[in-house]
Amino acid sequence: MISKMDIQNSMIQAVETVRKENPMAGSITNTVTINFVANAQLAVGGSAAMVYLPDEGEFLAKNGGATYINVGTLLPVYEDTLPHTAKILQEMKKPWVLDPVAVGIGSLRTQLLRQFKEYKPTVIRGNASEILALAGLWGLDGGTKLSNVRGVDSMDSVSAARNAAIALARWTGGAVAVSGETDLITDGSVVVLSHGGSHFMEKITGAGCALGGVIAVYATAASPFIAALTGTAVFNLAGSRAEKKVEGPGSFQVHFLNELYKASAEDIANNPFEIEEA
Amino acid sequence: MISKMDIQNSMIQAVETVRKENPMAGSITNTVTINFVANAQLAVGGSAAMVYLPDEGEFLAKNGGATYINVGTLLPVYEDTLPHTAKILQEMKKPWVLDPVAVGIGSLRTQLLRQFKEYKPTVIRGNASEILALAGLWGLDGGTKLSNVRGVDSMDSVSAARNAAIALARWTGGAVAVSGETDLITDGSVVVLSHGGSHFMEKITGAGCALGGVIAVYATAASPFIAALTGTAVFNLAGSRAEKKVEGPGSFQVHFLNELYKASAEDIANNPFEIEEA
Amino acid sequence: MISKMDIQNSMIQAVETVRKENPMAGSITNTVTINFVANAQLAVGGSAAMVYLPDEGEFLAKNGGATYINVGTLLPVYEDTLPHTAKILQEMKKPWVLDPVAVGIGSLRTQLLRQFKEYKPTVIRGNASEILALAGLWGLDGGTKLSNVRGVDSMDSVSAARNAAIALARWTGGAVAVSGETDLITDGSVVVLSHGGSHFMEKITGAGCALGGVIAVYATAASPFIAALTGTAVFNLAGSRAEKKVEGPGSFQVHFLNELYKASAEDIANNPFEIEEA
Repeated sequence: MISKMDIQNSMIQAVETVRKENPMAGSITNTVTINFVANAQLAVGGSAAMVYLPDEGEFLAKNGGATYINVGTLLPVYEDTLPHTAKILQEMKKPWVLDPVAVGIGSLRTQLLRQFKEYKPTVIRGNASEILALAGLWGLDGGTKLSNVRGVDSMDSVSAARNAAIALARWTGGAVAVSGETDLITDGSVVVLSHGGSHFMEKITGAGCALGGVIAVYATAASPFIAALTGTAVFNLAGSRAEKKVEGPGSFQVHFLNELYKASAEDIANNPFEIEEA
Repeated sequence: MISKMDIQNSMIQAVETVRKENPMAGSITNTVTINFVANAQLAVGGSAAMVYLPDEGEFLAKNGGATYINVGTLLPVYEDTLPHTAKILQEMKKPWVLDPVAVGIGSLRTQLLRQFKEYKPTVIRGNASEILALAGLWGLDGGTKLSNVRGVDSMDSVSAARNAAIALARWTGGAVAVSGETDLITDGSVVVLSHGGSHFMEKITGAGCALGGVIAVYATAASPFIAALTGTAVFNLAGSRAEKKVEGPGSFQVHFLNELYKASAEDIANNPFEIEEA
Repeated sequence: MISKMDIQNSMIQAVETVRKENPMAGSITNTVTINFVANAQLAVGGSAAMVYLPDEGEFLAKNGGATYINVGTLLPVYEDTLPHTAKILQEMKKPWVLDPVAVGIGSLRTQLLRQFKEYKPTVIRGNASEILALAGLWGLDGGTKLSNVRGVDSMDSVSAARNAAIALARWTGGAVAVSGETDLITDGSVVVLSHGGSHFMEKITGAGCALGGVIAVYATAASPFIAALTGTAVFNLAGSRAEKKVEGPGSFQVHFLNELYKASAEDIANNPFEIEEA
């Protein structure tokens, strides 16, 4: 099994490369949290660009170092844009992060998320319910039917989604990050549990989306697994640091962005985590 | 006439139920303030979900405790989504809040707002000019023609919209909240005047939209009238508390969300208001 | 050549008129930074309204004092809305600000930006790469081919875009503002270099968009050149003041809005700038 020190060295490398090279990670994402996603990507040292149209998705896929696709608020044009962009990303072997927000709501969302199976997203990030439902939609081990979905909130624990996450990672050959009180990241071979964060992350909208966007930034400079873990670690670190300084969710959002910006590569790598066999 | 104490007890009940049950109130709302709406809904203890497509509006209508519909920035797909969603809400007798933003601008906005008359929104929230114009559009007493509209700003005083608000509430059988320096809430039988707030609420975008979203959250747990009053009261309380701590609109928005989160049920119920016969 | 004092007196006039009259400047702008644009417009004393549909763009053009058009995140409906609105603005001789964000990405963006040549935007605001590429697209002196575009970031220096900016201003008969470390504003006859700002303005999304929206607010009350310079000056002033108070981009955004709100007309006019012949 890969050693903790090897992982930490790779995380440090990812953080420093991003800060030095300011890589562009384009997004096709929801309108609720699109601003927060961009600001989080900028705070960790990346560059952001968001689009809706098919040929603009193609441009981002071809010119960005990685792409973030979030199905949170679908518009009709997404029916063309998302499969077109995902197909190019796969053909070009470019890393991309899928956020299967609210899988189970509406026919277009189900259709698009089903199509993504063949395009094998490099990283899949979601809450436990989303990971379970996506694995179910794709007919993989550990998945559940599209039921018990309640908008964007998770009704399941992270540990309940462990097998689904492993199955998804094995299918894609990439990584899966399950967000919750303790976060789980897996490449299908090892499972990492990452600690930290804040109860305020559920009292602001978009912590999960912003994490997806930041993982895409790191995916320009690291493997899917290291990108997913590094993004999760900086969020857990910034969340716990910000929580100590604030008395409410308004201030939390502000300080959270500050802490994303200020976190050193070493502190991110040292944010507590454990490694297990998958 | 209902007693002040009865009203206050109902407000306390609404606030505490929401904080305990974290009810989902979906929204179809504008892109300008969609993030602020979601964050305000989360700050008072609710859960938010935003969509654009017809079958996703249907999902929110059926699965949410209440729904918020704001016509601020119409897209072509709204022509299908909004009437479809409103019809289901009425058929299922689910509470929903209509925010007739900028009524009078554009033909689709007029068409949609006219259609909503038959779907009887449970709560209507707007500024004085919007309430006057909506009553006029629906041919109700106290309404005005669609004139003197200036984008999203009110050109009229809250007291000038009193009769229109009462007529609207009597038509829908629900409640109407008119936002202004002193806010007016009516169920067509009594009129409540709610005090507080801050001059900074006109220096940030979305205070009205966020109020609509928060009223939808409370409407999952209280009558339309109590929901409208409770939402208005917590906004007035949080606004006046935040104003004392800040020197500009940037900080105001941050502290306003903090104060929404921190306000106790008793303090919200004790925010100054007066009751009158309609 | 116009004297520095004349310019400063005009700037003071613009700032004070806006604060007194709260003019409406409508926008058709991207979803990433739409909230920040509106809040910046409100902070300097204007009123904001955002739309997507053709007849609503027409309404804003006819009823607003000026209009801001930003092509950052195109949706299919923009193909109708933008030329329709721009045509009306030109016919009515109403001021409008064009932000050619990410010119070069996608066919619709190129088509729309090419069409705008004949509608002669009163103010063009962009980073150096965007100004160079727009001049190239319009076949003007100093322009470059649509190459080297990297999403929304500038790859060129402000001074490299000087001739393109002058050529654009001479074509439109209005003004051009090039954003960068030192900002350049020209009416085709004189060139002003405006100093200040903060490195944090590249670490938050939307500083450029918000500047475009604020220039539109000032364009309701001043010439294109004075509007562009006043907007740039208040951004440089607020940016440098905010930077001194913060430790990260989250706080910067908050304090930046505060400083936009608090800046006195005299301080804005006294923000350092130099005048040169074009």
